[in-house]
Amino acid sequence: MCQLLGMNCNTPTDICFSFTGFQARGGLTDQHKDGWGIAFFEGRGARVFLDAQATVDSPIAELVRQYPIRSTNVVAHIRKATYGRVGLENTHPFQRELWGRCWIFAHNGHLPELAGEPSGPARPVGDTDSERTFCHLLNALRARFPDAPPGDEELFGALRDLAAEIGVQGEFNFLLCDGQTLFAHCASRLAYIVRQAPFGEAHLSDQDLTVDFRSVTRANDRVALIATVPLTDNEKWVQIPRGTLMAFRDGVPLPYTDNQTGAGCEPTRITRGCSA
Amino acid sequence: MCQLLGMNCNTPTDICFSFTGFQARGGLTDQHKDGWGIAFFEGRGARVFLDAQATVDSPIAELVRQYPIRSTNVVAHIRKATYGRVGLENTHPFQRELWGRCWIFAHNGHLPELAGEPSGPARPVGDTDSERTFCHLLNALRARFPDAPPGDEELFGALRDLAAEIGVQGEFNFLLCDGQTLFAHCASRLAYIVRQAPFGEAHLSDQDLTVDFRSVTRANDRVALIATVPLTDNEKWVQIPRGTLMAFRDGVPLPYTDNQTGAGCEPTRITRGCSA
Repeated sequence: MCQLLGMNCNTPTDICFSFTGFQARGGLTDQHKDGWGIAFFEGRGARVFLDAQATVDSPIAELVRQYPIRSTNVVAHIRKATYGRVGLENTHPFQRELWGRCWIFAHNGHLPELAGEPSGPARPVGDTDSERTFCHLLNALRARFPDAPPGDEELFGALRDLAAEIGVQGEFNFLLCDGQTLFAHCASRLAYIVRQAPFGEAHLSDQDLTVDFRSVTRANDRVALIATVPLTDNEKWVQIPRGTLMAFRDGVPLPYTDNQTGAGCEPTRITRGCSA
Repeated sequence: MCQLLGMNCNTPTDICFSFTGFQARGGLTDQHKDGWGIAFFEGRGARVFLDAQATVDSPIAELVRQYPIRSTNVVAHIRKATYGRVGLENTHPFQRELWGRCWIFAHNGHLPELAGEPSGPARPVGDTDSERTFCHLLNALRARFPDAPPGDEELFGALRDLAAEIGVQGEFNFLLCDGQTLFAHCASRLAYIVRQAPFGEAHLSDQDLTVDFRSVTRANDRVALIATVPLTDNEKWVQIPRGTLMAFRDGVPLPYTDNQTGAGCEPTRITRGCSA
């Protein structure tokens, strides 16, 4: 199974600490050596780093681990190839534009039975069931809302329906982001944590590394992290129930999301950088 | 004026030498400090590095300069902001998918008069005339050939018509690539060179750096470089005439291209890496 990592925050936050643990799963603490990728949103734009080699051997992964790129939305993926050769065109996260927004998608699981070509302008470049499904999702959204995105809650409802429809055909854990909202769908394995004041220490599960968030945060910072397997071994991660779509914004689950435990946290934006 | 750099080769080639000179134009030997980007095709996939800061200050540019990523098609751009704020969403090269192919586009010039929204699924994410024009180009291609790409020569003809139509509205120097063919349109300033055996020494115009290509090439290697301003001061670059579209494949202009001087060079593919 591949590994997913997502981050959604109320303030631009670097992911260096979390990525250090995540990176180890690409060939060191786990056997996912068939490529990796990470997308950072900055405003409406995104920068996507892709590499078809193992993270532990990748100079680009080393740059991402050491260079604090601050972002409010991050989607990362480490691949274990099942469908499609090892190559850049089959490396997650995938990127497309819809309604003048940049969309980023990463998938974990198998969808071998997803039938036929997606109907609509988005077509896969590579050979993976994942990219094909992403195109199908976007084409389905465009068919429902051809000219402009609907309201947030309606968009969430449409995605929940689509995730359920596609989910019966296979295993459909995914992260999807349009630069503002990070959607997370759990089919089999996905957990999240919301870090906010009072901050404490966190220790990685995959490397012997500890960070004291009290020294790198301010009182209003809030960061949601979503991962296939919890990244730290001394914090309380919440397992997302199977068949659940969640939506995160400003570091908390949105009120209408399926499994939100962050109710009462008012979105707060501040301008300096945080770390996660 | 922004700076363009393209490379098209018959064998995977790193662009470290050329990028060293090009990078200097982003704040050292020229005043283009409003971001930069570079796209490397590897097979059908592309990796795109974007940065909204000057190349001379960018750790990512430093990685690209030092880490030999081998590619047969590269498109790079250094930005001097005219339309749109300095930000990732306004940083070239831009990327879209059409007909299941990844397309990369970078523009130099002004197209302030390009009228209205592009008609079709591709829409700009940012605010630049350049991205808007790219969307217009792709939507126009999709309108002419909705289901699949036409033959090479027909595609070239369609692009030549579109470049001429758009070109009357402003200044339209661009590089466009689908991973196989690199299209280069000169409105005001664009030059190219084809490097092939017998190889010699090259000296950068922007840095005091020389490379002897005899030590890093094989007999059949062939590399076409396209740049706003020639990158070397001891080689013979060819100025592309104004209003001309060229198409490069396997390191040479294609036979039906407007200004080809490489006739008689049979495409040859070899598998090891080259340097340019």
